[in-house]
Amino acid sequence: MKVILERIAKSMRNIWRIGADDPAKVVHCLKVGLALSLVSIFYYMRPLYDGVGGNAMWAIMTVVVVFESTVGATFSKCVNRVVATILAGTLGIAVNWVAAQSGKAEIFVTACSVFLFAFTATYSRFFPSFKSRFDYGAVIFILTFSLVSVGGYRVDKLFDMAQQRASTIAIGTCICIVITVFLCPIWAGSQLHRLVQCNLVKLADSLDGCVEEYFKMKDISTNEDKETNMKLQGFKCVLNSKGTEEAMANLARWEPAHGSFNFRHPWQQYVKIGAAMRRCAYCLENLSICMSYEAEVPDQVKNHFGEACMKLSSASSKMLRELADMIKNTRKSSKIDYLVFDMNSAVQELQETLKAVPIETNKLEKEEDVKSEEDNKEGDRTMAMSLHEVLPVATLVSLLIENAARIQT
Amino acid sequence: MKVILERIAKSMRNIWRIGADDPAKVVHCLKVGLALSLVSIFYYMRPLYDGVGGNAMWAIMTVVVVFESTVGATFSKCVNRVVATILAGTLGIAVNWVAAQSGKAEIFVTACSVFLFAFTATYSRFFPSFKSRFDYGAVIFILTFSLVSVGGYRVDKLFDMAQQRASTIAIGTCICIVITVFLCPIWAGSQLHRLVQCNLVKLADSLDGCVEEYFKMKDISTNEDKETNMKLQGFKCVLNSKGTEEAMANLARWEPAHGSFNFRHPWQQYVKIGAAMRRCAYCLENLSICMSYEAEVPDQVKNHFGEACMKLSSASSKMLRELADMIKNTRKSSKIDYLVFDMNSAVQELQETLKAVPIETNKLEKEEDVKSEEDNKEGDRTMAMSLHEVLPVATLVSLLIENAARIQT
Repeated sequence: MKVILERIAKSMRNIWRIGADDPAKVVHCLKVGLALSLVSIFYYMRPLYDGVGGNAMWAIMTVVVVFESTVGATFSKCVNRVVATILAGTLGIAVNWVAAQSGKAEIFVTACSVFLFAFTATYSRFFPSFKSRFDYGAVIFILTFSLVSVGGYRVDKLFDMAQQRASTIAIGTCICIVITVFLCPIWAGSQLHRLVQCNLVKLADSLDGCVEEYFKMKDISTNEDKETNMKLQGFKCVLNSKGTEEAMANLARWEPAHGSFNFRHPWQQYVKIGAAMRRCAYCLENLSICMSYEAEVPDQVKNHFGEACMKLSSASSKMLRELADMIKNTRKSSKIDYLVFDMNSAVQELQETLKAVPIETNKLEKEEDVKSEEDNKEGDRTMAMSLHEVLPVATLVSLLIENAARIQT
Repeated sequence: MKVILERIAKSMRNIWRIGADDPAKVVHCLKVGLALSLVSIFYYMRPLYDGVGGNAMWAIMTVVVVFESTVGATFSKCVNRVVATILAGTLGIAVNWVAAQSGKAEIFVTACSVFLFAFTATYSRFFPSFKSRFDYGAVIFILTFSLVSVGGYRVDKLFDMAQQRASTIAIGTCICIVITVFLCPIWAGSQLHRLVQCNLVKLADSLDGCVEEYFKMKDISTNEDKETNMKLQGFKCVLNSKGTEEAMANLARWEPAHGSFNFRHPWQQYVKIGAAMRRCAYCLENLSICMSYEAEVPDQVKNHFGEACMKLSSASSKMLRELADMIKNTRKSSKIDYLVFDMNSAVQELQETLKAVPIETNKLEKEEDVKSEEDNKEGDRTMAMSLHEVLPVATLVSLLIENAARIQT
């Protein structure tokens, strides 16, 4: 009994957490409920119900299927649905007319056309560029076309029916659009913006965390282990966010101007920034693999590289944070050039340290035999990594500067 | 005019290529056409049409919406649709009965229940574990529930209507299942299997290509540039296949036993293998960044490391190929232990070479001043990378061996 109660309590907490973490989700659920309640008025009021000829069902269906959490997604589905319905409806009526003219071959003509159009529409769904925008439209096209052309075989007043259905679908889409846009709108664009910014900060945290962990904090870290670990694992979010970013950028294109974003905001830039960030994250992944070798590295080597590495990593992460701020304010920061210079000088310094190493290790070698070389290699590895980080960061920076410039204009 | 013709010819070739590359897609399109033609028989034949009380529309709708290219996807949608419809239909009728008993408050009761259930179902879609399996079911639940409970306000013989709709949906799902399973079935499981296997081979090719390119082939490569480049970029497919793999593993769970796969085949293992492969691919990504530094490395250093690195990489890629074969035949290969040993000895050898370096570079130092050290560093970097590769490969190997063991039992 107690176990069951505990389980229920746990899942309750889970349910609560999802809502509390992102209130937008709760708002979306409320909006769905509201839209459905609104659209069911067409059933409750006799004149409205008769007005659409008993086809109110289609309005409800449209609302359920079309209503999505972001404005962009709802827009794209609405446009897809309306265009596909009109196109398929017209085609269906045309095919129906041809079939009626052909007398005995009526069934044959309809069946063939259904087969043909279904084949074409399904095939078109395999084109990546088509799929990303019009996938839903293709499904609706097949559906409407089959219903109209085949259904015409049994229904007499086909044209009236088509008209009524079209009007109910229009009512449904209007309700959806009004509610998504005017009632606490959730913009895919803003979400993408925030996601990219968060990921930059996470990258900076991870980078700092990794290098610090490697070079000194080992004894302190057990204290605040959980939080540090969270930060260290931050880059994993960046690794996995590709799909989300692309989907959002796709949806954001459908959205009208809102907040500080224009209609033709360069959303694809965000995808590019995301790709650059992922390249940084790959380096971090490898750095974190290095950390498992950490115990093998003696303090001498650590001390030798420690300062330069820390400097470079703090310069890099400062840069990342500045870039995050830059994205937040959507304008180019004056500090960025200074930070780039800072980072480059840190790279120089590290390279200097590096050049000074072999001699030193060779001195050690005489004292400690071969062992120290291996350690040197370990040290080298970290620092090679750090250098690697610079390359993607540089890419990221150039991309971001370009982006900032575009936003400004 | 000529430009337009050329464009048309180009897009025609594009269209043809998509079908030719993967005939399964064409088969899927044909199957959709066939299923729709079959289901429209319910319109053409009077007794059948009257049998379902003019609700044949729902059968067509079910086919259009439920029919997916893989068996797993179709199954999951069918189950979702049927279960959600039955559940929501029963609930809707119950709510309708309660509303009818409450007299004047009828509209209030229905509206509130629609709002409440829509809210709950939409909220449940935000749980990742629920969403991955029952997302479609939640949509259908909201749809059916609203239609039944609200529609009951206007329709008199609600129970009859619900029964007829359920039967048409059953007919639609039956047609879908029969056609997907018995007519050239496309199994999500087999596709996942093949994807993982292809990715392993691609990784091996990329690894070979990268290391060869780095150490010698530079003069020859311009010759067959395009193909080599394709191979080198192979690891990028591995980087991007996360989403596909997870979706497929999700769908494969719904599939019955087929070919050499049982019902409870450990599909999650494939996801784990995929993750391990991605870790390898991260290393390759970094290796390929190193290649841009290639020009800076003098031949001495290259020659010094060349042999050992080549040995390691060929041992690693042989291992990857063997693993791909192992997956293909779904049984543990006897050669694998030997290859693991081979790879480990290659690692040892590389480490030996590495230990021998600092002395050598120091000798060079006296001749060439500081420059050689930097080169040494460059060399070190590649080899550090190669060592890094070993770690994920080792993870991959252990995972695969475990997997093979599970498949055998």
